Amino acid sequence: MIVRDKGKNKIEVCFSPALYPYYENPEAVVVVVDILRASSAICAAFINGASKIIPVETLDEAKKMKEKGYIVAAERDGIIRNFADFGNSPFSFTSENVKGKEIVYSTTNGTQSIHLASSGYQVIIGAFLNLSAVSKHLIRTGRDVLILCAGWKNKFNLEDTFYAGALTQELIISRSFYTECDSALASLDLWNIGKNDPIAYIEKSAQRHRLKKNQLDDVLEYCHTRDLTTITPVLVDDYLVPLREFS
Amino acid sequence: MIVRDKGKNKIEVCFSPALYPYYENPEAVVVVVDILRASSAICAAFINGASKIIPVETLDEAKKMKEKGYIVAAERDGIIRNFADFGNSPFSFTSENVKGKEIVYSTTNGTQSIHLASSGYQVIIGAFLNLSAVSKHLIRTGRDVLILCAGWKNKFNLEDTFYAGALTQELIISRSFYTECDSALASLDLWNIGKNDPIAYIEKSAQRHRLKKNQLDDVLEYCHTRDLTTITPVLVDDYLVPLREFS
Repeated sequence: MIVRDKGKNKIEVCFSPALYPYYENPEAVVVVVDILRASSAICAAFINGASKIIPVETLDEAKKMKEKGYIVAAERDGIIRNFADFGNSPFSFTSENVKGKEIVYSTTNGTQSIHLASSGYQVIIGAFLNLSAVSKHLIRTGRDVLILCAGWKNKFNLEDTFYAGALTQELIISRSFYTECDSALASLDLWNIGKNDPIAYIEKSAQRHRLKKNQLDDVLEYCHTRDLTTITPVLVDDYLVPLREFS
Repeated sequence: MIVRDKGKNKIEVCFSPALYPYYENPEAVVVVVDILRASSAICAAFINGASKIIPVETLDEAKKMKEKGYIVAAERDGIIRNFADFGNSPFSFTSENVKGKEIVYSTTNGTQSIHLASSGYQVIIGAFLNLSAVSKHLIRTGRDVLILCAGWKNKFNLEDTFYAGALTQELIISRSFYTECDSALASLDLWNIGKNDPIAYIEKSAQRHRLKKNQLDDVLEYCHTRDLTTITPVLVDDYLVPLREFS
């Protein structure tokens, strides 16, 4: 695969919110990725009919929104907060819980990354669940792409990087994009190692072990399922709405 | 290779100086890596008999040291500074230039990382040129290891990561170490993709293209040569000295 065969727009991958200042690009669509589990859960919420998701950075804000009557999903370190309606398992965002509703959402890594990314031209949410939809949206939009991996407490993580590789591959294949970014090249290599069996590849990751320890690893297969939806969550003002594919 | 089969000490890899606060470990030996070209040049200097290397962060400091009569190697973005005796090509650190001398050294990424790393238990310099020596030193020391990739202006880079994978592999094979660090696991995977032909693997990296553009890529083969020396450069107070292997 020729990655430098200049398509029109460039792809960069940022491995941590703490590195965002060095990759920041006001012209780029920023794809926020937190595969286990925030970006997968956001897709699940829209699949099940949520009208809007309001990402908030702090638990204090989340608590205040709960007191105002919102439905609140909030967790830290994978564990649901006692004031919240549920945490960030995609399986909690059921039709019963979210259909037609505005959901306030606060997680360890994902929601902070969404706020950070808002300095870009547009912020969208990427997951395996909507990989093709995101890829088509980016090709249609015809701008630079910055894939922002939420990571784990500012550390690099394997599962977001692995997805960044999958998305980079889709974009490069379209011939509308190129990359000269070492993080994108490394992501592509990791994706190519594991793409035939993503769950087996992710087995070694720290987050997979963390989830297992807390008996939260029931979501692994779901979070690595491709194209369950054609929805791309897009940040409009301070909340996420579902952009549906029309083609 | 079983990476979680608990050896005594852990390995972590930090992909950028900007991520150092999240990996910082005062108990760890920190291995500073800047393969193209600072850590390779430092090894070359000691191979050719330099007595001491004084890493300085700013060009101002480097200039003042030049005025005091020191031999100064200084570059930014690969280009030698006009007040300096030479830049950071390993080929400039000849016996004629460095034998028995104290060299002041300031580079774009490498020397800043050395200062940062000084919060660890010990700082050493890692390159392919001294891979086995570094590995033996770490096994003998019997402490946690943090591999700090100098990267490129706080961005992730491929060549330092590739080396981090090579060193992680050596340490894991010794069975004295384990890792649960996603960056170390990713580095290992990248090393295993490219280890049979390191220069071919590094061909795609941004720094390789940068060096080529400035006609500075004559160092590629040298910087990827294994075990040209048994010296491990160690930071003592504010300068690097050559630790020789006695076994």
